Amino acid sequence: MVIVMKDSASEELILAVADRLKSLGFDVHKVVGVNKTILGAIGDKRDIDIRQFEIMDGVQEVVRITEPYKLSSRTFHPENTHVQVRDVVFGADEIHVIAGPCSIESEEQLFTIAGMVKKAGATVLRGGAFKPRTSPYSFQGMGEEGLKLMKEAGKQFELATVSEIMRENQLDMMLENVDILQVGARNMQNFPLLRELGKTTKPILLKRGMAATIEEFLMAAEYIMAGGNYNVILCERGIRTFENYTRNTLDISAIPVVHKLSHLPIIVDPSHGTGLRDKVGPMARAAVAAGADGLTIEVHHQPEKALSDGAQSLYPHQFERLMEELRMIAWAIGRKIKQG
Amino acid sequence: MVIVMKDSASEELILAVADRLKSLGFDVHKVVGVNKTILGAIGDKRDIDIRQFEIMDGVQEVVRITEPYKLSSRTFHPENTHVQVRDVVFGADEIHVIAGPCSIESEEQLFTIAGMVKKAGATVLRGGAFKPRTSPYSFQGMGEEGLKLMKEAGKQFELATVSEIMRENQLDMMLENVDILQVGARNMQNFPLLRELGKTTKPILLKRGMAATIEEFLMAAEYIMAGGNYNVILCERGIRTFENYTRNTLDISAIPVVHKLSHLPIIVDPSHGTGLRDKVGPMARAAVAAGADGLTIEVHHQPEKALSDGAQSLYPHQFERLMEELRMIAWAIGRKIKQG
Amino acid sequence: MVIVMKDSASEELILAVADRLKSLGFDVHKVVGVNKTILGAIGDKRDIDIRQFEIMDGVQEVVRITEPYKLSSRTFHPENTHVQVRDVVFGADEIHVIAGPCSIESEEQLFTIAGMVKKAGATVLRGGAFKPRTSPYSFQGMGEEGLKLMKEAGKQFELATVSEIMRENQLDMMLENVDILQVGARNMQNFPLLRELGKTTKPILLKRGMAATIEEFLMAAEYIMAGGNYNVILCERGIRTFENYTRNTLDISAIPVVHKLSHLPIIVDPSHGTGLRDKVGPMARAAVAAGADGLTIEVHHQPEKALSDGAQSLYPHQFERLMEELRMIAWAIGRKIKQG
Amino acid sequence: MVIVMKDSASEELILAVADRLKSLGFDVHKVVGVNKTILGAIGDKRDIDIRQFEIMDGVQEVVRITEPYKLSSRTFHPENTHVQVRDVVFGADEIHVIAGPCSIESEEQLFTIAGMVKKAGATVLRGGAFKPRTSPYSFQGMGEEGLKLMKEAGKQFELATVSEIMRENQLDMMLENVDILQVGARNMQNFPLLRELGKTTKPILLKRGMAATIEEFLMAAEYIMAGGNYNVILCERGIRTFENYTRNTLDISAIPVVHKLSHLPIIVDPSHGTGLRDKVGPMARAAVAAGADGLTIEVHHQPEKALSDGAQSLYPHQFERLMEELRMIAWAIGRKIKQG
Repeated sequence: MVIVMKDSASEELILAVADRLKSLGFDVHKVVGVNKTILGAIGDKRDIDIRQFEIMDGVQEVVRITEPYKLSSRTFHPENTHVQVRDVVFGADEIHVIAGPCSIESEEQLFTIAGMVKKAGATVLRGGAFKPRTSPYSFQGMGEEGLKLMKEAGKQFELATVSEIMRENQLDMMLENVDILQVGARNMQNFPLLRELGKTTKPILLKRGMAATIEEFLMAAEYIMAGGNYNVILCERGIRTFENYTRNTLDISAIPVVHKLSHLPIIVDPSHGTGLRDKVGPMARAAVAAGADGLTIEVHHQPEKALSDGAQSLYPHQFERLMEELRMIAWAIGRKIKQG
Repeated sequence: MVIVMKDSASEELILAVADRLKSLGFDVHKVVGVNKTILGAIGDKRDIDIRQFEIMDGVQEVVRITEPYKLSSRTFHPENTHVQVRDVVFGADEIHVIAGPCSIESEEQLFTIAGMVKKAGATVLRGGAFKPRTSPYSFQGMGEEGLKLMKEAGKQFELATVSEIMRENQLDMMLENVDILQVGARNMQNFPLLRELGKTTKPILLKRGMAATIEEFLMAAEYIMAGGNYNVILCERGIRTFENYTRNTLDISAIPVVHKLSHLPIIVDPSHGTGLRDKVGPMARAAVAAGADGLTIEVHHQPEKALSDGAQSLYPHQFERLMEELRMIAWAIGRKIKQG
Repeated sequence: MVIVMKDSASEELILAVADRLKSLGFDVHKVVGVNKTILGAIGDKRDIDIRQFEIMDGVQEVVRITEPYKLSSRTFHPENTHVQVRDVVFGADEIHVIAGPCSIESEEQLFTIAGMVKKAGATVLRGGAFKPRTSPYSFQGMGEEGLKLMKEAGKQFELATVSEIMRENQLDMMLENVDILQVGARNMQNFPLLRELGKTTKPILLKRGMAATIEEFLMAAEYIMAGGNYNVILCERGIRTFENYTRNTLDISAIPVVHKLSHLPIIVDPSHGTGLRDKVGPMARAAVAAGADGLTIEVHHQPEKALSDGAQSLYPHQFERLMEELRMIAWAIGRKIKQG
Repeated sequence: MVIVMKDSASEELILAVADRLKSLGFDVHKVVGVNKTILGAIGDKRDIDIRQFEIMDGVQEVVRITEPYKLSSRTFHPENTHVQVRDVVFGADEIHVIAGPCSIESEEQLFTIAGMVKKAGATVLRGGAFKPRTSPYSFQGMGEEGLKLMKEAGKQFELATVSEIMRENQLDMMLENVDILQVGARNMQNFPLLRELGKTTKPILLKRGMAATIEEFLMAAEYIMAGGNYNVILCERGIRTFENYTRNTLDISAIPVVHKLSHLPIIVDPSHGTGLRDKVGPMARAAVAAGADGLTIEVHHQPEKALSDGAQSLYPHQFERLMEELRMIAWAIGRKIKQG
């Protein structure tokens, strides 16, 4: 931490700040310039609210010089983390595509789509059983029955599976039925839920909150990891900006930024990131080109009849063609995507 | 709903859209212009995802003409809702000020502050027992013990009380110990939690999410009300923008906007809304001047020793002076604030 | 400037950074901790791009510790600046209200409105002669003829006058006809225009850009002041956020922030800041309560016939009533507004 | 335009709105539902401020059903526009890369870089002679002398050239010396400048403003086109959001959105869009993958000595390698980039 004192700060005020730093265990170094005095506080104290110094008399500015996260930081773990689920490894050379319907609607629907995405090269099946809907009057998901269908579909089509957990008491049935537990954007800072997930060993797919900075995103991962579960896959899914032609603004630059700051794999959700079917392809291609470790894409064989998010779901033939383009782009940057 | 067809849309495509609208129970009216055809769909269908029409061939644009919320809308409830807790009524002429520490830290701390804010004219005591902290390494609150202190303090100082509920399994102890249950900004779209709160009869203080539009804010209230609990107090607490001198940008204009769209009372949190002590006073005054039905303000007798958010807590003497200014502003616009 | 070196930075890399700092005239102080080395660079060098250090090998982070602006900073000019125009002084105890139509449309229109706002207590008349319209097909203003009407109206009603300058070649006719030159939000970073205005002595009303941080806002003022013209009045007029119920989000907290960082007066434009007539009153009151040094409000006697921005213009009787409320709020915080 | 009347609107109020619509030349169609009446106004009136209806009594909502822009809209010009400069065509199959230094600093600097980017496959040389600097104390560019160097360099290396125009009175020397005139993000809504450019026939590279919606972006193009100059190349360069790890958030989704709404070519500036050298490569690849018609990239042979924006400039060898990756990605999506 670096504390810049005001030009007018008296020696007494400077001493008070230095004393407080020392009482918290910091080594303090004082730099005296013509107008300004700066205190350099050295020590690995990640849990300190720096604003307690900002409110001290004579202080102009306080600057944190260590990231507030540690377990998720590349500084302490230079190598990429590989998150393995069945024979799928996120964070290695191969790029994995998660695909499936927004909501699980029926056995027929799920199995039809599962077969189609498997054939196109997807390695993980997605599908929501519990849906976080903005309106209390909208379809809220099939619940546990849906999860069981996921398990069946995963087995039958040899696909790993992922579904969203919305509340702590769904944990057992989630662990029982799916391979990867997804935390939705609205729950990125549901800290009690993150803590519970930290106690499991299942891979967690953590989606970035709509208004979360990348630092907050990595802090949310830290919550899970602090509990002992290091199997975290990050997922960029669009942030809220003033532009409203698309539902959200997919922050493609989060990919290289996260890769620099963290060792965790990061994938991209172009379906929610744009909310519009005809934008999914271009943004999926952009994500792979920018270095994403995977994608999650909504696919439906009858989008116009989907109970949720039909407007952003690809038709199976669109998905198939997209997978071919993605394979070539992956190849162009020295990575690969599985053949269907 | 109004559906604007593309200039090029064939008669067949127009018919397909009209048929779909009819199958969902809408009355359909067709307006044919020189270049454009517009379909007006009349009917009170709040739970329809309009994007299912956006993806139909030939459709240029779909416009919703009813708000997606109903119970929280002023259209269906023109009079202001009064939310009563003990002898405090939110939404009537009197403006109420909630005050107290960010976190409950000890009996001595809570009772000292409670006495001070009571004396200055606050009518509700605030204090967190469960804290949603961005870092897993920060102080997480006193838990149930804190809630019991709240109950005691409320009794002793004749103040109503409010504290934040973070997870569903805290509900019983919350109902037992505090008068108003607060839903934090990060939980504004924690739909399972909102549903549970809808089953109680306790007043709910619902904070606006950092990236929530006013429509989403009212939809969150709708979740609670749909369960039968109409005692919802809304709370503006700052939105996330590009400006980062303050922690958030307090959206004062949300006050008149909410008053126009909804019958629910709205209060303002200038402490979290700015994150800086010296901005709390000006923004509290602005909120009252703009028509807020109340305020929630963090006060601490020793902010520099606070376990959380000390930097945004007022000293008691600052709070007292602020209350006097607020009384005069309230009077200027024909409202009033209790004498201490 | 403080430069934090990476944990892994070699002594050689640290030396290279220190040398570069010294070559630019900084005094360099080295703080060595267990893991980190920090370089404190002391010296008043405002014109240095700190990113040149960010790209040096071994550098983790660079922190600027002086504001990039100087003339507009309160650090170097602790007293409030008073900007005087005729007998109107911005930045002193009295709060001044600028009022008038969005666009000057005719002599009759301007003089009618001028008389009405004068009577209600406004001290400055506003009106646009050159209009920055988003659409090339919209009304673009009366031009020089409008400016001459402004001059006449100012004389007849004993009001100071303000109008927007859009391009450098309008400077002469502006200087000839109006008392305060307004720089619109879209021109806040039109640096050549700012430079030209710096060469005059006329007061400049500088509006904050829609996406400008407060630092950039003060840097824009710096451009004008660097040319020798210190008569700058700042104007908050709403920033662009994700919320789109209102046209912009009026950033009321900018008032106390600017007052802390700068000695320049700051006023608020609730008309453009909200874009909606029924929000103008509440936001005008909020601005005064938060400490604004003035307001600029659009008033039209026939808003439904206005050639621009009618939807946000107050009727004269609304303006009159608002002025009375504002006077009481001003009084509540120890300031005053002229009687009509 | 569709006008939704309030549930409570009387027949008289509805008539008043209908009359006003007719007086403006619209055909009016009335749709009467159980609770709501809707007026459909048919007619090609692009220059009407719809808010004049929003303020009429009884009106709930007004919805524009035609885009406010026409010349830049794909509706009226379904084919891609090709903008040709020398033998470079923007908007066709080939993707063009503009490259060069941020600022022209000297003949040696410009010619060295020009040679290097030409060799790597760039077809247009960029370089600023007039620099819009946030600080009045920063380097402001070489001016006309720089433009003459551009002309020389373009001739010698057989590259088309582009440089930014900052004010109207630079137009003649711009037309004399460079092939494409760039309008910077801060000038996107400098309407007088856009009008002047509309009178020329030179290609204009129009950068998106930091806070401009895509609609406003296309309206700015409309200003130029309304003057008769249809040679507009759009350029996405990052928007301002709450995320501040990168300087701006590069809005990659603007590429497919613009391609849908407009026939104009759109290119991307990953240098300003990220502000950080190590993010330029990934974002350049993403842009091409998403369908951009070109890129503009800052390259400097000695970025650490650059007078501006060195931190975001690529080294020549990085640029060369990037061009090879881009060629493969272009090929993957059926387009191509020139060999160096």
